[in-house]
Amino acid sequence: MLKRLLLPCSFLLMSSASFAQNEDSLMIRKLYNEALLRGQSYENLRYLCKRIGHRLSGSPQAAAAVEYTYQVMKQFCDTVYLQECWVPHWVRGDKEIGRISSVRQGAVNVKLCALGGSIATPAAGISAEVVEVRSFEELDKLGKKGVQGKIVFFNHPFDNTHIFTFHGYGEAVRYRWAGPSLAAKYGAVASVTRSVTNTIDDHPHTGSIRYDTLYPAIPCAAICTRDAEVLSEIIRNEGKANFLLQLNCRTLPDTRSYNVIGELRGSENPEQVIAVGGHLDSWDLGEGAHDDGAGCVQSIEVLRLFKAAGIRPKHTLRAVMFMNEENGLRGGLKYAEIAEKKKEKHLAAFESDAGGFSPRGFGMTMKPEQRSKVLSWKPLLEPYGIHDYGGGGGADIGPLEKQGVPLFGLHPDSQRYFDYHHTEIDVFEAINKRELELGGAAMAAMIYLIDRHGL
Amino acid sequence: MLKRLLLPCSFLLMSSASFAQNEDSLMIRKLYNEALLRGQSYENLRYLCKRIGHRLSGSPQAAAAVEYTYQVMKQFCDTVYLQECWVPHWVRGDKEIGRISSVRQGAVNVKLCALGGSIATPAAGISAEVVEVRSFEELDKLGKKGVQGKIVFFNHPFDNTHIFTFHGYGEAVRYRWAGPSLAAKYGAVASVTRSVTNTIDDHPHTGSIRYDTLYPAIPCAAICTRDAEVLSEIIRNEGKANFLLQLNCRTLPDTRSYNVIGELRGSENPEQVIAVGGHLDSWDLGEGAHDDGAGCVQSIEVLRLFKAAGIRPKHTLRAVMFMNEENGLRGGLKYAEIAEKKKEKHLAAFESDAGGFSPRGFGMTMKPEQRSKVLSWKPLLEPYGIHDYGGGGGADIGPLEKQGVPLFGLHPDSQRYFDYHHTEIDVFEAINKRELELGGAAMAAMIYLIDRHGL
Repeated sequence: MLKRLLLPCSFLLMSSASFAQNEDSLMIRKLYNEALLRGQSYENLRYLCKRIGHRLSGSPQAAAAVEYTYQVMKQFCDTVYLQECWVPHWVRGDKEIGRISSVRQGAVNVKLCALGGSIATPAAGISAEVVEVRSFEELDKLGKKGVQGKIVFFNHPFDNTHIFTFHGYGEAVRYRWAGPSLAAKYGAVASVTRSVTNTIDDHPHTGSIRYDTLYPAIPCAAICTRDAEVLSEIIRNEGKANFLLQLNCRTLPDTRSYNVIGELRGSENPEQVIAVGGHLDSWDLGEGAHDDGAGCVQSIEVLRLFKAAGIRPKHTLRAVMFMNEENGLRGGLKYAEIAEKKKEKHLAAFESDAGGFSPRGFGMTMKPEQRSKVLSWKPLLEPYGIHDYGGGGGADIGPLEKQGVPLFGLHPDSQRYFDYHHTEIDVFEAINKRELELGGAAMAAMIYLIDRHGL
Repeated sequence: MLKRLLLPCSFLLMSSASFAQNEDSLMIRKLYNEALLRGQSYENLRYLCKRIGHRLSGSPQAAAAVEYTYQVMKQFCDTVYLQECWVPHWVRGDKEIGRISSVRQGAVNVKLCALGGSIATPAAGISAEVVEVRSFEELDKLGKKGVQGKIVFFNHPFDNTHIFTFHGYGEAVRYRWAGPSLAAKYGAVASVTRSVTNTIDDHPHTGSIRYDTLYPAIPCAAICTRDAEVLSEIIRNEGKANFLLQLNCRTLPDTRSYNVIGELRGSENPEQVIAVGGHLDSWDLGEGAHDDGAGCVQSIEVLRLFKAAGIRPKHTLRAVMFMNEENGLRGGLKYAEIAEKKKEKHLAAFESDAGGFSPRGFGMTMKPEQRSKVLSWKPLLEPYGIHDYGGGGGADIGPLEKQGVPLFGLHPDSQRYFDYHHTEIDVFEAINKRELELGGAAMAAMIYLIDRHGL
């Protein structure tokens, strides 16, 4: 009897669940078809990279990118607006010089670039003995006696055994971020850090640093990995080497800038928001294609896909072009500050800032029960190559965590990311159209599920 | 009581299983570390692409590649030998000419190339009206009346909605493979097929065809997708267009060639073989980097990884450089023929022939119980991004299926494959070192599990 009662009941439940699943999978297919057949991310990125170019905070190009993305979103969003934030304004100046004085080989020019935020050297440069360390422990051992008056060369190699390359980055980037001040602590006059990348290449990889106010600020640069090997070999063969470093960068007063925000208004709970963003600023080498033009155009595309596929979201979808992720995070901080002040309710926040490569999953920062709910949707996304749910959210959406917002970071395949990261070769040509469009579609699919089923 | 007996028992079972799992995961980590830190695939591929170049069956370069891979494997294999097979010898001759005669635009040169195996046109070329069809159904509708004496232009677009791009390829490639003879059936004098690729690009994509002996052989070419659009637009705007096609290819007598085979002898069951291969021949455009230099160097690398990691296989591991996959499959057929004749026992056969991209899984052709066993190892490979077990084996190992050999095809990310496939841009520079090395490591890991636990 129980059996007889239960059977039709569970049958009903199952068929209702599979009906929902079926409708979900149809809607997801619709979003992907739109992306793959008529996706606009790629052409929007072409404009951002080729017509505007790199977009360092405070630069005229960053301002042009604000205007451009505002206009793109105006075409189909219900609302587009700017969110003012003041950003650091650092400029590189003339091309940097790095030169080893080798006893055996004479002057050896190397490829390097100032790290973002560095002070300049005197106009004639700084010339001093260079001392190599592989770790902070080696630096501490050398101490003041071994470092005073010298240029410290941080030659910590990237650990290539990590499958997810961001883990190797996380380990090695300390020498870029904290190295200059830790060298200054022992009296170094400048520092040169091995570029943080998997590869041996000819492109210095820039990136931000943090000067510790306890110690004097010293000029600091990133040397390309091939020349890091050259420098290391000369020191090893000759016992020591002199180095000339000339940087022409400077920091101007903070500049007014903006986050750019576009919205599709929710049909049922418009006061509840699902946000998706990338950062509009980039470093001033290359064109900021993977980092993070890709994330910006994908975020805009998420909203366009809903609109074009005729899927009206229940909650408000918001695309956010964050300003100044690279050297200040002022946009991300301002966004969270305003969200808190306005008591905005975020159902979830997404970030794409790991390159425009083939998407493989999402990093997630959220409560276990929310995580379980997301994982229950796995079968719907596996046909699209979305398998991996390791790792966490992202930098720009990070400040929302303390408001309890569930965070998602799009995880594209990471193998090639650090080939391009913060270099002159991070250009539009390094992007594959399908890989880029699939990233936007993957975020749209997950956002669809959250919009429909909550979190 | 039962409980008390069961508990320690299942505990013992569990701890023994987890010990084995733990040892497996350590060995897999060892293989990956060797690949990521000291992998040699990339430098071997550089030689194959840059010193030897493309390797069409019967060409001097194909012979050089036989010699080169023989020497590479000699350095560390227990046995290396050649397996003779006779291969087709088709040569392209001088660069092809394709020209539209447009009433409005005059002569419009287009980029095309002869399809592999095509006959030549007369020296002066063939000039005729061109008639466009999107499908075989459209061709049938035109019939003899609409086709006789004309050049058929197969303009079937690649379906970009497939996530796994090989599915789109499978649908569209019919117009290359079977199109010429089906056009000839209705009296066409030549055929031009839209290149089989996801993208709109400027590179004609060559590939093999099959002449049906029922109909006359006609010259046939692939036109690059951008020019396919141009040709289609001219026909649409002007009602009709004339086309000049000049191909200079010819087929020479079959040539002696070889599969190249290297072995690591098994320590316990040397008479049982696990084979892993790619094809050494390539088309004569580009350098055959993704197709399939990658698969060759990865297969060699699988054996080297075992050797370098100090893992002695129980069964014999065999790397096979198959000859003539592209236009005959003679090597694959010969390999299976000899295996059958010698009554060789294959535990499994692997193939890598889908590009040197980031690996995502394995296609499998095998019995359900073997499939279940492989899937029980999923957790061991997931940390390496191996998630996907859809699809089947591969062309060169295909003939082993009827001997009951379980087949594995390495599945790299497929998004970029058809950008390069069979074109002049399939060159070494299109390969990323980490992605390539990870492919060899993924196959080594799966082979390790089969070698240890059987299938």
